[in-house]
Amino acid sequence: MFKEKFNEGIISARDFNREDIEYILNQARVMVHNDKSSDLLKGKILATLFFEPSTRTRLSFESAMHRLGGRVIGFSSAKVSSIKKGESIADTIRTVENYSDCIVIRHPLEGAAKLAAKFAKIPIINAGSGSGEHPTQALLDLLTITEEGKKLDGLNLGIMGDLKYGRTVHSLAILLSNYDVNIYFISPKELMLRNRDKEFLRQRQVKYKEVEKYREILDVLDVLYVTRIQKERFADVEEYDRVKGFYIFTNEDLKVTKDNFKIMHPLPRVSEISAEVDSSSKAIYFKQTYYGIPMRKAILAELLSF
Amino acid sequence: MFKEKFNEGIISARDFNREDIEYILNQARVMVHNDKSSDLLKGKILATLFFEPSTRTRLSFESAMHRLGGRVIGFSSAKVSSIKKGESIADTIRTVENYSDCIVIRHPLEGAAKLAAKFAKIPIINAGSGSGEHPTQALLDLLTITEEGKKLDGLNLGIMGDLKYGRTVHSLAILLSNYDVNIYFISPKELMLRNRDKEFLRQRQVKYKEVEKYREILDVLDVLYVTRIQKERFADVEEYDRVKGFYIFTNEDLKVTKDNFKIMHPLPRVSEISAEVDSSSKAIYFKQTYYGIPMRKAILAELLSF
Amino acid sequence: MFKEKFNEGIISARDFNREDIEYILNQARVMVHNDKSSDLLKGKILATLFFEPSTRTRLSFESAMHRLGGRVIGFSSAKVSSIKKGESIADTIRTVENYSDCIVIRHPLEGAAKLAAKFAKIPIINAGSGSGEHPTQALLDLLTITEEGKKLDGLNLGIMGDLKYGRTVHSLAILLSNYDVNIYFISPKELMLRNRDKEFLRQRQVKYKEVEKYREILDVLDVLYVTRIQKERFADVEEYDRVKGFYIFTNEDLKVTKDNFKIMHPLPRVSEISAEVDSSSKAIYFKQTYYGIPMRKAILAELLSF
Repeated sequence: MFKEKFNEGIISARDFNREDIEYILNQARVMVHNDKSSDLLKGKILATLFFEPSTRTRLSFESAMHRLGGRVIGFSSAKVSSIKKGESIADTIRTVENYSDCIVIRHPLEGAAKLAAKFAKIPIINAGSGSGEHPTQALLDLLTITEEGKKLDGLNLGIMGDLKYGRTVHSLAILLSNYDVNIYFISPKELMLRNRDKEFLRQRQVKYKEVEKYREILDVLDVLYVTRIQKERFADVEEYDRVKGFYIFTNEDLKVTKDNFKIMHPLPRVSEISAEVDSSSKAIYFKQTYYGIPMRKAILAELLSF
Repeated sequence: MFKEKFNEGIISARDFNREDIEYILNQARVMVHNDKSSDLLKGKILATLFFEPSTRTRLSFESAMHRLGGRVIGFSSAKVSSIKKGESIADTIRTVENYSDCIVIRHPLEGAAKLAAKFAKIPIINAGSGSGEHPTQALLDLLTITEEGKKLDGLNLGIMGDLKYGRTVHSLAILLSNYDVNIYFISPKELMLRNRDKEFLRQRQVKYKEVEKYREILDVLDVLYVTRIQKERFADVEEYDRVKGFYIFTNEDLKVTKDNFKIMHPLPRVSEISAEVDSSSKAIYFKQTYYGIPMRKAILAELLSF
Repeated sequence: MFKEKFNEGIISARDFNREDIEYILNQARVMVHNDKSSDLLKGKILATLFFEPSTRTRLSFESAMHRLGGRVIGFSSAKVSSIKKGESIADTIRTVENYSDCIVIRHPLEGAAKLAAKFAKIPIINAGSGSGEHPTQALLDLLTITEEGKKLDGLNLGIMGDLKYGRTVHSLAILLSNYDVNIYFISPKELMLRNRDKEFLRQRQVKYKEVEKYREILDVLDVLYVTRIQKERFADVEEYDRVKGFYIFTNEDLKVTKDNFKIMHPLPRVSEISAEVDSSSKAIYFKQTYYGIPMRKAILAELLSF
């Protein structure tokens, strides 16, 4: 079912209904509890085409593929590829599909992964398309939340930071629209969710609120999902500095949170969460990176094994 | 035989006689019909040293090595290597040969691969040496032509584009000098074949013609091999733009071609072939990338297995 | 014993006593005499995080891991990673440790590897930390010296070049402080050993002398270890050129050396050793690169197998 539905790959969180999400979460949980390396994908090749820099996403996909016995080819910068010579995404894809069994692509353009899937005969996995989406990050985020003891229905979730350009935020909100959640979108006015995203959530009848200061609603949250505020988005550096100041989560903040509160971050972080918070059991952003492996193993196994 | 003759590796198309070509084409055909992954080169390591950017050549060599069960190390940019610190090719080779069983090298200098082979104790494969040669590309081109139903003897082949600096063109013409072909070299005057290359073809009694406009001879061609015109070669941008205009192959052009006509391109393309042509069964440039895998598997198997 | 002592990894030559050195040298010798690939580390993943360029160290670690049947992920330039986005070493390490079983790190900061080890739950291997240390290079240097027929006790060793900033020099001198050696430090005044390093050697009662001209002591040396003088360290180019002239080792120099004299270099070299010397049996710097494989295999096997 999942395999058939997603035979073109993982492009957008919008393609997932509740059943799909539950299925892949369960497959990932099997991987959590069986973290040995295997030969499941022996003889298969994954191509990782990263037109934008990445540590976590690229390395975790590659690690997941190796853990399943498969092999990896690819590039980690557009500069070393033929893009430099003016090649289109469509041509790159129609070439690399002859060298591999699945392509993971990160690209600065919002529709890049969708375009790639249109041309490819093999599955495409969207590893971040501009300010658009990053669906496998959102899936591993849900795995993290549920494996750390939370239920998605009834969850009070704060999502804080760059809600306008943050692709992980978009995919996460879309996936959660399949559940009965309360989302608090926390950001300076300049970085609030775009109207088209809010429109989508309203259509899906998602209960959400927009707030500017996280301290106002911190005590009601089960999970706070923090993202990096990208300095480069601000025209005015002073404004960035003003905004940045609101968003330094400290041990002081932890004190008002619920006992079971958890704080997450897709990383990399700059200064949004103070290093002192790292040692709290409520801080699960490094565990979150761990969950990237079982989720990506589950996805690769689903798309590539028989 | 082949293995003994090429025990220093694949450096130049000039080293191949007709028998050598037929042998490696046949070995590659075995790989076409047996495209499963194997363990033939288990325990062997291929080093890919790319001092110039590449998508196709590097990734297809790496994919071929993985499909045969071997491993890959290397770099895709001179910037991340010790070249930056001033190391010579000879020193790099005498180092990397201790880490691997075969070296694939792409370098901006014309004699780079030959120099590398002079110093190496393991086989060197020339993956593009400046404006000089790119022999494995030419071998996969012949595989493509023959697998797509053409005979090399009697072939009417147009080679169009940058004939002066195009290394794939040089290697292709040299290999074909072993056959009874009719070659039409199509290019603006500025990018015609160099005298030394024409001298070589004359000595080998190759029948060739130089033309400036492909439409004049399009109807007699069995295959048209298009290459990218490299903007950077032109001192005068206006001249580039004038020339570029001659070389946009469209569906309109297809109409006057023979029924069995095929159009090829080593890729990347910029605008030499219009995207509308892609869907024609006469367009085989993406298939051509596919043939890179069986040809490179055949070469690696030949050089590295017992 | 070794495994337990170094369960946090290989950070500094200072952590090695004579017994540790002898143990790992012996393990490496086993690898020298059994250079077949194996499946010892099948299912294990090595992460190579190179924030500075490298050919030898990165490729030899990767080759060693592949020869043992393990897999490799990583990056070869800080530009393609999240460092570009402002991530700290601690965060990178706490992420990548979830994707791998061991991390090899090269970083421009002197304390980088130590810091990484502080945060990591898996072994860290220091592959060069700024001007500080490069312990695995020094271990392979000792393997080279002993495998090429020398005893460490009683050795008359010249170390020439950039003794101030050269990290391989520092690690080598520290390891040798466990033996009864005579070290001649040869460098222009500007690049002499730092006081803190000399202090360490005096405390360990190492017999050493500082000289400016290698020709004065060349006839007493068993081994001359040459390093690259890094042009970028000199404020004054003229001074660099003056210094550089002192340090071009030629065949003329070889004539006054002992019969069993050997000349080494961690490479890359620029012009410190003339190319004419390469063909002498006294020149063992390329063999030295070879010994990187068995030494790194021994280290990886020790840290990662049961």
